[in-house]
Amino acid sequence: MTQSEPIETFGHGGDLWTAEKRLGVPREKLLDFSANINPLGPPPSVWQAIHDNLATITAYPDAKSRELKSALAARYHQSVKKISVGNGAAEILYGILRTLLPKTVGLVYPCFSEYAESAAVVGAKLHGVYAREEDDFVPSRTELLAACEEVDVFIVGHPNNPNGRLVPMEWLREMAVRLRERERFLLVDEAFLDFVPEAPTLLQELEEFPNVILLRSMTKFFSIPGLRLGFAFASPELTERIERELPPWRVNALAQGVGIAGVQDHDFEARTVEWLREERPFLRNELEALPGVKTYGGLVNFVLFRCETPDLQEKVGRLGVLIRNCAGYPGLGSGYYRVAVRSREENLRLLTALQQAMLEEVPTCPTP
Amino acid sequence: MTQSEPIETFGHGGDLWTAEKRLGVPREKLLDFSANINPLGPPPSVWQAIHDNLATITAYPDAKSRELKSALAARYHQSVKKISVGNGAAEILYGILRTLLPKTVGLVYPCFSEYAESAAVVGAKLHGVYAREEDDFVPSRTELLAACEEVDVFIVGHPNNPNGRLVPMEWLREMAVRLRERERFLLVDEAFLDFVPEAPTLLQELEEFPNVILLRSMTKFFSIPGLRLGFAFASPELTERIERELPPWRVNALAQGVGIAGVQDHDFEARTVEWLREERPFLRNELEALPGVKTYGGLVNFVLFRCETPDLQEKVGRLGVLIRNCAGYPGLGSGYYRVAVRSREENLRLLTALQQAMLEEVPTCPTP
Repeated sequence: MTQSEPIETFGHGGDLWTAEKRLGVPREKLLDFSANINPLGPPPSVWQAIHDNLATITAYPDAKSRELKSALAARYHQSVKKISVGNGAAEILYGILRTLLPKTVGLVYPCFSEYAESAAVVGAKLHGVYAREEDDFVPSRTELLAACEEVDVFIVGHPNNPNGRLVPMEWLREMAVRLRERERFLLVDEAFLDFVPEAPTLLQELEEFPNVILLRSMTKFFSIPGLRLGFAFASPELTERIERELPPWRVNALAQGVGIAGVQDHDFEARTVEWLREERPFLRNELEALPGVKTYGGLVNFVLFRCETPDLQEKVGRLGVLIRNCAGYPGLGSGYYRVAVRSREENLRLLTALQQAMLEEVPTCPTP
Repeated sequence: MTQSEPIETFGHGGDLWTAEKRLGVPREKLLDFSANINPLGPPPSVWQAIHDNLATITAYPDAKSRELKSALAARYHQSVKKISVGNGAAEILYGILRTLLPKTVGLVYPCFSEYAESAAVVGAKLHGVYAREEDDFVPSRTELLAACEEVDVFIVGHPNNPNGRLVPMEWLREMAVRLRERERFLLVDEAFLDFVPEAPTLLQELEEFPNVILLRSMTKFFSIPGLRLGFAFASPELTERIERELPPWRVNALAQGVGIAGVQDHDFEARTVEWLREERPFLRNELEALPGVKTYGGLVNFVLFRCETPDLQEKVGRLGVLIRNCAGYPGLGSGYYRVAVRSREENLRLLTALQQAMLEEVPTCPTP
């Protein structure tokens, strides 16, 4: 059984340009489940902030993002000195690795491909712990702790992309302790944490763990991936070192305005939590009910599933629905897919497209 | 004679946040001559592109900036493989230094402070050639060529900021040859080249000089510093290495749209050239006519001048006009200022404020 080449030529979902070319569907017509963006956003507060700040693009943005940092500090009850900001979390991730210059980076496979990419940029070796399908993608505590003896920086997605798994907080603490003993670092990627009920984090324990960095993204929750905005929490000393690695003016004027407005929008936060509480179980259950589909746990705004229908991405793609082909993730392989949770109506379109793709013989696309 | 502390606490002009605090003038009321932004922009084509692309901020931007690169390739008659793009030229500058990892970086003082900052990030020593005031800030050819024997990367502002000086093309070629013999690199910062008549560049000679990188900015010419957009030309091999250093999705969706529209706006280009041809000589002559003011050469959209009036930046600042204090530039010192060329009406406001500051006793501001 051959599988068509994944659309993720560059290793990421949300690549509408490659999808358009491959599927022959104009990109504005694709319903994108391959990037995990909050379908309720951007909220009116964010559009208002964009509108209010449009005139300021003719001036340099604040190179120090002072007002944005103050807003984040107020929202999270942390000192501005513990907050670094960036042009998306990806930029900060690269900056962190350049700051810490690890020889070995720990990962829990399968995970976001940029962990390995950013490690490669600083020439670090990878030390992977595999979270296995038969364990519902929960990694082994013993293996995690053993790896803490080997690595200089351990990167943990929390929740992890693409499987939505959270490492239990107690394990994270144990890892932080072991790494601290060796003067090594734990980088917790909390890019999707805002979507998780209770949002378990080490944020209140940063004093105790000067070796822990918490990476956050605002692009997913506020639906502004095209504007770019990320930040990180760490000790003041580490924060200063990370920011020194990063170029000035890196957070554009609109993103700064949007960040300030976004963190104050508690109504949007509440609405998002409410939507996801309804919609995630709905989507997961409906997916699970499809013939030959198995879904995997997690409480976040995306669902990993397995399905043996060949060329599933291409088949639903030609029906105008883009899903994430996870064949390229180490620890997964062909037959795994990830879909974002969207609105009820959109989720139903996804489910219909999947059904159609699974049941019908869809004529194969001429290769471009 | 004491001088008040420059507003450039962080080493840059255009810092409206510090200016507002220091001067007690709301930042939206400051007429900013401290950043060198085209006063004719953004052109309608750019506003239209922003408008047309606003809805796309809810999706990831093209991580590979394919359409933007194609537009740049078409405009400059270069292969897309020679073009790297970034979140402002500053990001690419940092990426270039991390790619080349020089032990020694050559500079022509006075120059843009980010050359030294980005060199510091990779731990490089600086080797400075001084362009002296008594030579009208033209550096010595002999010293430039001698430095080519010492450095791994030579960064030349072309035109140079803050004095607007161009190193003659023949000298640049000689430098490129000497550096090529040693397998070392010449990085020509052409951020302001679009403002220079004829725009002399080594762009057509990149085949011959695989060791030359040309750095460009779109933020100044198109008046979008708040959106961020820069690019660079280099050999395909070097371009690939530079891009590998830089994080994905770094050029936001609006900047990509604006870049595509901007490079096709030949009318705006023509209008800018025309404005500057009139306005630069006007401003320079009027500045020179002020008592005790000496201006320096160059054909770009800013003017460096010297003036002994104490606290000049603060005095004109309290009149609502922000000028660049150049005291912090190695090779300059207190009494040097830089002003952008703006519209006639704005330039007249600057001149009036300067006159007033020079003639009147302005009560000193209470220190905050």
